[in-house]
Amino acid sequence: MSDLSVVKKNRRQHILDEAARLFKEKGFGGTSMRDLAEQVGMEAASMYNHIRSKDEILEQICFQVADQYIAHLTEIEQQPGTYVEKIRALLRLHVRLVIEQGDAVAVANHDWKYLTGEKRATFLEARRLYERRLAALIEEGMAQGELQPLHVSVALFTLLSAVRWVELWYRPERDISPEALEDDIVTLLMKGLEK
Amino acid sequence: MSDLSVVKKNRRQHILDEAARLFKEKGFGGTSMRDLAEQVGMEAASMYNHIRSKDEILEQICFQVADQYIAHLTEIEQQPGTYVEKIRALLRLHVRLVIEQGDAVAVANHDWKYLTGEKRATFLEARRLYERRLAALIEEGMAQGELQPLHVSVALFTLLSAVRWVELWYRPERDISPEALEDDIVTLLMKGLEK
Repeated sequence: MSDLSVVKKNRRQHILDEAARLFKEKGFGGTSMRDLAEQVGMEAASMYNHIRSKDEILEQICFQVADQYIAHLTEIEQQPGTYVEKIRALLRLHVRLVIEQGDAVAVANHDWKYLTGEKRATFLEARRLYERRLAALIEEGMAQGELQPLHVSVALFTLLSAVRWVELWYRPERDISPEALEDDIVTLLMKGLEK
Repeated sequence: MSDLSVVKKNRRQHILDEAARLFKEKGFGGTSMRDLAEQVGMEAASMYNHIRSKDEILEQICFQVADQYIAHLTEIEQQPGTYVEKIRALLRLHVRLVIEQGDAVAVANHDWKYLTGEKRATFLEARRLYERRLAALIEEGMAQGELQPLHVSVALFTLLSAVRWVELWYRPERDISPEALEDDIVTLLMKGLEK
């Protein structure tokens, strides 16, 4: 990649990052391209050299997040290890992505509703497929006797839902490190609250 | 209570129930008093004999739900039993209220944002107090050695968040009974997914 195209790529990612921050703060509907240009410190006209529309920004953010979850899931599926280890790794991933990219994850979790047409259908299909693959890990873990015999969908959605609050709560100044937060959530979900 | 006032109270509750259904389906903003009158099969004018405004309906729904959670929590706190038993009872309560009154719980969970002024402040204070009392049960359970030693807020919010999906997923035609659903969620959260 030429130096110029690297600069252009970084600039584009910077616009996406700032957009995610604004969407989370003011809502997708409440954020204008003018707000965004101001936030990134560019003239609106030159911002359009990097990105065409608010819809395109939303698509980029949602699919970047989805792609990361899917890439990590693929890696975890292919690694050797028990189902317990795989599910632990996935729970850690869910917590870590929120800590490291909270704005983008929040946008992908909430503002995907503003995706339209084929993009929306593709995003929802990717999410469904991700859930099915995670459900398959849970089901196989139960079949192998590693996991409690529960209703697979109930286990799946309880796990996914159980980590959703982190997005609303976590800030670097909280009295817990990211690692301890991951540990505590994984312990509660895998070992249970009871001692 | 006179027969007439019983009829009036039932009529009022029927309006609230149908309002909760419409708010969940079309959103608080997307539901008009005209929609509601049509849904309950009354003239708008006579509906106003029972209820003054959409804001009043929202307040009633939110506080009825909050009052139930608080009343059950008070009962659970006062019952004899271990902390494990108390927290199990509370988790069951959270699942059961969603199954039995899913529309109203959904409105209280999401549309409280449309409460205004003092009502909003009172509702949020009630929610914070509920969370603090549940956190106290968790903390005492840890102090007694009944529960895993985790960050109290992390345990609290993981539990509360872990049951939130039920509202979106549960329908009577699902392939699981309400009791089995309660059992599976409580088992996962208290005993862990690992066998």
